[in-house]
Amino acid sequence: MDPLLFCGNLVLTRTRAYAMRASEDSGAPSFRIVKSSKRAQQTNNPIREFVQPDPPRKLPEGRSLIKLSNGDPTTYGNLRPPKEVVAHLASTITEGVADGYSLSMGSVAARESIATWATETAGGSSTSKVSYSTKDCFLAAGASGALECALGTIADEGDNILVPAPGFPLFRTIAGGYGIETRRYKLDPEKLWEIDLETIESAADDRTRAILINNPSNPCGSVYSRQHCEEIAQLAARLQIPILCDEIYADMTFGSSEFTPMACVCSDVPVLTVGGISKKFVVPGWRLGWILVHDPVGALDEVRVGLRKMTTRMLCPATPMQNAVEYMLSGFSGHLRDLMKVLEENAALTETRLNAVPGLNCIHPQGAMYAMVMVDTAALGFTDDYQFAEKLIEEEAVEVLPGRCFEADNFFRVVYAAPASILEEAFDRIDAFCRRHIVNE
Amino acid sequence: MDPLLFCGNLVLTRTRAYAMRASEDSGAPSFRIVKSSKRAQQTNNPIREFVQPDPPRKLPEGRSLIKLSNGDPTTYGNLRPPKEVVAHLASTITEGVADGYSLSMGSVAARESIATWATETAGGSSTSKVSYSTKDCFLAAGASGALECALGTIADEGDNILVPAPGFPLFRTIAGGYGIETRRYKLDPEKLWEIDLETIESAADDRTRAILINNPSNPCGSVYSRQHCEEIAQLAARLQIPILCDEIYADMTFGSSEFTPMACVCSDVPVLTVGGISKKFVVPGWRLGWILVHDPVGALDEVRVGLRKMTTRMLCPATPMQNAVEYMLSGFSGHLRDLMKVLEENAALTETRLNAVPGLNCIHPQGAMYAMVMVDTAALGFTDDYQFAEKLIEEEAVEVLPGRCFEADNFFRVVYAAPASILEEAFDRIDAFCRRHIVNE
Repeated sequence: MDPLLFCGNLVLTRTRAYAMRASEDSGAPSFRIVKSSKRAQQTNNPIREFVQPDPPRKLPEGRSLIKLSNGDPTTYGNLRPPKEVVAHLASTITEGVADGYSLSMGSVAARESIATWATETAGGSSTSKVSYSTKDCFLAAGASGALECALGTIADEGDNILVPAPGFPLFRTIAGGYGIETRRYKLDPEKLWEIDLETIESAADDRTRAILINNPSNPCGSVYSRQHCEEIAQLAARLQIPILCDEIYADMTFGSSEFTPMACVCSDVPVLTVGGISKKFVVPGWRLGWILVHDPVGALDEVRVGLRKMTTRMLCPATPMQNAVEYMLSGFSGHLRDLMKVLEENAALTETRLNAVPGLNCIHPQGAMYAMVMVDTAALGFTDDYQFAEKLIEEEAVEVLPGRCFEADNFFRVVYAAPASILEEAFDRIDAFCRRHIVNE
Repeated sequence: MDPLLFCGNLVLTRTRAYAMRASEDSGAPSFRIVKSSKRAQQTNNPIREFVQPDPPRKLPEGRSLIKLSNGDPTTYGNLRPPKEVVAHLASTITEGVADGYSLSMGSVAARESIATWATETAGGSSTSKVSYSTKDCFLAAGASGALECALGTIADEGDNILVPAPGFPLFRTIAGGYGIETRRYKLDPEKLWEIDLETIESAADDRTRAILINNPSNPCGSVYSRQHCEEIAQLAARLQIPILCDEIYADMTFGSSEFTPMACVCSDVPVLTVGGISKKFVVPGWRLGWILVHDPVGALDEVRVGLRKMTTRMLCPATPMQNAVEYMLSGFSGHLRDLMKVLEENAALTETRLNAVPGLNCIHPQGAMYAMVMVDTAALGFTDDYQFAEKLIEEEAVEVLPGRCFEADNFFRVVYAAPASILEEAFDRIDAFCRRHIVNE
């Protein structure tokens, strides 16, 4: 019998036993293998895995890589933030007026300006005016930080949230790390990626903590009509499940498509809306996002406290950028108009060119900077979209993201923020690639 | 009997029951109360709770608040980052060279410069030279973000880490949210806050995932001798427990105290070191921190993968600041010398003045920008340090942090980064306050 078992304090006993076992090896420079947490193991981001493979993929000789993969409008330098905003941030830095910490949930001034801006935006075309105040706004390091904070606040391990398929994988990345189950609802490509509401209803149960709505959509480039938003709100009210919106592409719409903030149509459903400056102002690297709390039914008092607590982990997002946001949101609608003009032209070019390629079918994009393109992998002789995307890099040096990253088999996502000349070159290469591979045309 | 119980699919059954129950109320603008997660409820930051009370505390009339509470060297504007660094960041912003995303673990250039700098720093006074490469470095949004990432990677719910008492509460804030138990080891004020190593040994067991070492210490302002660091390393090796260092105050030492990077004395223990630019460069609002992996025994391969995965949740820290760090770490030792001269003079002033106050005893500070001051609460007629600190605000408009925030009963922490004239005024007020309250002198 092990005499250690008879010591008084079990914890101490184990400690001593452990230390003694360890010390038998002392002198030798050995150490037990250190495990990573279940949390880290469950944190998976398929985009990063595709675009940062180890070892890196080989490119065809003499051709430079065209990247239509990253959702980063700065990649080619053709799109820029407004000059005035840049000058304002530079002088904030130079004058040193915002080098210190802010409140953990963000400075009062920045939160006030976001609340004011969101109230004005939400009230524009609606009688059910939504009103935000400073206390409804929580800043974070980018919209991804805001999502991490919001998801962490509303769901525990073993709970679930409903996420779109196809959908942005970060929802699963964050939820996975937290042990929150993600259940899919379906978007219908035949209805310009509207939600199949039945699939929300069948996925929900009493552990469902939120319906995550991403509008305008990454990766689909879709924009929901006001009527569709109302249908979603009615369903959420009936199911008694709060809505968590990812509206990082708010207002980035083409033609007659109009953006409806989800909160505007939710008079009896609590809504957390995630937003940020990354895409509209072409500064994803500035890392400033936010959560807005819309609580028409008085259901979110505890969530507000929770959000505040969660922000105290990371102290605050970068304060010079907080200073900039006050300035940014008070103007620059001309900038957004110019940006959307470029993106709309690029979207049309993308749709036209790719629909002329055998084996491809580009679903009409209505906003953001994305389109999803259906691939007839069988006709093109590929096993799946992942192989299609890998071969496209290896043979033509064009990088798009395979549908698998978004749980959309037989699709790829294309980002059309690059200059038209580069897009044309990429589409030439994609055209040649598909014509070379097509089995039956 | 409930007929719903006889449906085929249990999940669906519950869903339907839930939806039906919810729909009974439809029409009424009511909604169930939404709970916050256990994670959010367990995320507590006592500093934020003390300095941001709701409702705010009343100040004495006609006196402005002197804040010696926040660990923010920018509060009074007397300390500034190097002019060249400011100009460099401003031009990075103006030229738009770093507005996009970087790799999720940080740009190669920034990580390479940090690895090079850390290698040079670590090799300075040591034969056991530590060498870092780009792949050993992971960036995060501030040292707090780095701690969040590191703790999240090495410990699961139900595991434990050993943290110092007194200690920076953020360790408990982050671990609490993750459900990681924090066990205390003791720092001894009679030995300038050296670790009582026995208390590490008695707290450790086989669920202990790391010994967290904070050197130079917040809140203690202590700096461990090389010999003490070696003793810690030997103990960690014997216990087979990795070390997690918070070295955000690296190189910020006074007089003959010299900073020893923990990794330098760990030839047979794996070490994760958290660092950043916040304090040394007087820019805590820039939010750039990092984790460096020192793995002399080949124990951390899985942890490296885990760290990489965890960084993909938040995409990346602010990229203009990543661009700045390359520039910052290649020079500016003169800046640090000037900064430390000011802080050392302030530390001496603080110690002299507070030791002349009845009821107070300032433990000699050796570095960082903090000192811990023992309060004879009984002699001063207060129930505890919390009441002392609250009354000091209400009566004298001087804000220091009560020891309770750091698990140090009958102490307060003073930050001496303010200009000497403001410190003098604060110490006058503290002196008057204590003389007024002293029961027996």
